Amino acid sequence: MDNAAATPVRKEVLKAMLPYFDKEYGNPSSAHFKGLKARQAIDDARKKVASLICSSPVEIIFTGNGTESVNLAIKGVANAYKQKGKHIITQKTEHEAVLETCKALEREGFEITYLDVDKFGLTDLKKLEAAIRPDTILITIMYANNEIGTIQPISEISKIAKSRDVLFHTDACQAGGLLDINVKILGADLMTLNGSKIYGPKGVGMLYVKSGVKIKPIVYGGGQEFGLRSGTENVAGIVGFAIALTLAQQERIKESKRLTALRDYFISELGAKLNGHPKQRLAGNVNVSISGIDSDSLILQLSDEGICASTGSACSTGKNEPSHVMRAIGLSEKEARGCVRFSLGRSNTKADVDYVLKVLEKKLRNG
Amino acid sequence: MDNAAATPVRKEVLKAMLPYFDKEYGNPSSAHFKGLKARQAIDDARKKVASLICSSPVEIIFTGNGTESVNLAIKGVANAYKQKGKHIITQKTEHEAVLETCKALEREGFEITYLDVDKFGLTDLKKLEAAIRPDTILITIMYANNEIGTIQPISEISKIAKSRDVLFHTDACQAGGLLDINVKILGADLMTLNGSKIYGPKGVGMLYVKSGVKIKPIVYGGGQEFGLRSGTENVAGIVGFAIALTLAQQERIKESKRLTALRDYFISELGAKLNGHPKQRLAGNVNVSISGIDSDSLILQLSDEGICASTGSACSTGKNEPSHVMRAIGLSEKEARGCVRFSLGRSNTKADVDYVLKVLEKKLRNG
Repeated sequence: MDNAAATPVRKEVLKAMLPYFDKEYGNPSSAHFKGLKARQAIDDARKKVASLICSSPVEIIFTGNGTESVNLAIKGVANAYKQKGKHIITQKTEHEAVLETCKALEREGFEITYLDVDKFGLTDLKKLEAAIRPDTILITIMYANNEIGTIQPISEISKIAKSRDVLFHTDACQAGGLLDINVKILGADLMTLNGSKIYGPKGVGMLYVKSGVKIKPIVYGGGQEFGLRSGTENVAGIVGFAIALTLAQQERIKESKRLTALRDYFISELGAKLNGHPKQRLAGNVNVSISGIDSDSLILQLSDEGICASTGSACSTGKNEPSHVMRAIGLSEKEARGCVRFSLGRSNTKADVDYVLKVLEKKLRNG
Repeated sequence: MDNAAATPVRKEVLKAMLPYFDKEYGNPSSAHFKGLKARQAIDDARKKVASLICSSPVEIIFTGNGTESVNLAIKGVANAYKQKGKHIITQKTEHEAVLETCKALEREGFEITYLDVDKFGLTDLKKLEAAIRPDTILITIMYANNEIGTIQPISEISKIAKSRDVLFHTDACQAGGLLDINVKILGADLMTLNGSKIYGPKGVGMLYVKSGVKIKPIVYGGGQEFGLRSGTENVAGIVGFAIALTLAQQERIKESKRLTALRDYFISELGAKLNGHPKQRLAGNVNVSISGIDSDSLILQLSDEGICASTGSACSTGKNEPSHVMRAIGLSEKEARGCVRFSLGRSNTKADVDYVLKVLEKKLRNG
């Protein structure tokens, strides 16, 4: 129940990847038949992904993971548009990939506005609009939060950005598996997705960059990926990513419905304080505050019972600081330390939820 | 015969990787048992690799490929030491990953010296030493050239760098499979390797960074890889890389001997002008100038006969410019366009070489 941290590669995905490890191992830049086969596989994957998000293939850049895509989007825009301005707007509940990239840019002289969110983790659109300045070049706001599952009004944010001639990037890593990622509807200029959250492989991500939007690369070399991400392409990973995204998007409406019912059952049976928005939240996300517990310790106890859960972002594990997301939605440090996240996924059933409820009841009863 | 461009993943490597796609799919940063299994796999891989190159595990940074490692090394040192100086020394025959990163740094105000090489592609150590200035912070010179196979005197270069208090990075992507990569003997402060050239997977590389050497990250986020390369780790890729490097290093002396004999037989039978050093060259590298041919066209003809060869670096394919390496060793533009590279690998036998010789003879006879 930690599908927000990682998902297993689906068997259909792995099957599609396998030939590209040994039989079709060519370098996609080679001119011979082995190279052409690999190039064809990447071209096909790019077309598939482009079609799924309603973009054009030349707008898809494959990267090494979601974090790299986020860095490429934010730094890429920052470096391409710094003559126009050096102000970027984001919000306090973003993933570390966004926040740390913004901090790095601050050290280079950029100014970052970190917007507050409301108690549900939602962006305040009025505050967002008010934060836009003549030198604002980019708004970067996530599609769905990795800890509390809150889904942001991406189309509304796009409209505001567009009306003020500011570029808009959305980190959609948590959304790729379950939400609509049609960039025409979302209106984003840049969008990050990754493989490891959609039952695809780790080690591959993508960045959508709308035609006409300029970005500077962060990695230089042979000029792969339209000159925006040099380095020999991870052919098997790219093939796997495209299949995983295809399957996820094919199944997303049915699976969202199933997970939403399971999630709401879980939440009601838990009877604990829910963090994040009650309705505008990811189908599988259950984040609750349980008074009187230390969540780090509870996670280890649950692990001993075969249950994977999390205190928040896996990427912050071991940092021994209360979650910045929990603090941003107004929880005290103590409350923030009592949060547990269950993120339901494809394999989870009502029986799993009942088992977790039973184990939790026992643990909490025994203190 | 294009093993310098890409190598198939060995079956032992793929077998070791497979569990990490589905069964052990955890996020290495998760605190529960699935996370710990993934973390353990990465820790084990890091220890294996560290032991192979005679370093300590904390000196190993896993990345997305060789190009990213090179960028991290060069930009990482440049950004960490720019207060000390902004001068970097490299040479004209480096891979695009090095040259383009250096060009990007030039646009940021760094000064780069691109050393000439001799007609064999060797670095002139006296010229190297003379190029060092008080503000030189880094020397980056490849271990073995990807086009002509020339092996540089890395230990000698290290000694010069050390004596002048300058850091030294070597791009060892072509060397990982066949040469000694003991960093204690090589003396490099930073060393790049990648998976796709050593019968490991694409999408994974590594950078050795000697303890005490400071580098700034190029990708920010959750702080993985000691804060130097954020993003969820490519667990399967890292596991595969470690096994591939282990096998390559176990077999390298025997395999080098076999390939050297095969290479020298090939060269003598070809009877064409050899590019690169006759002795100090990679065991599998055969790069020849064939007068009167257009190598681009020959590569396609060979491909039709089931033979994979190359005009030079796969990463430059399609650029329609003569190889910068060939120009650097003194070939005219016309001569540079008549170069063909065969890079022999694990699967190649004398029968393969004889077949290529037969096909070549036919092609050249028929004009």
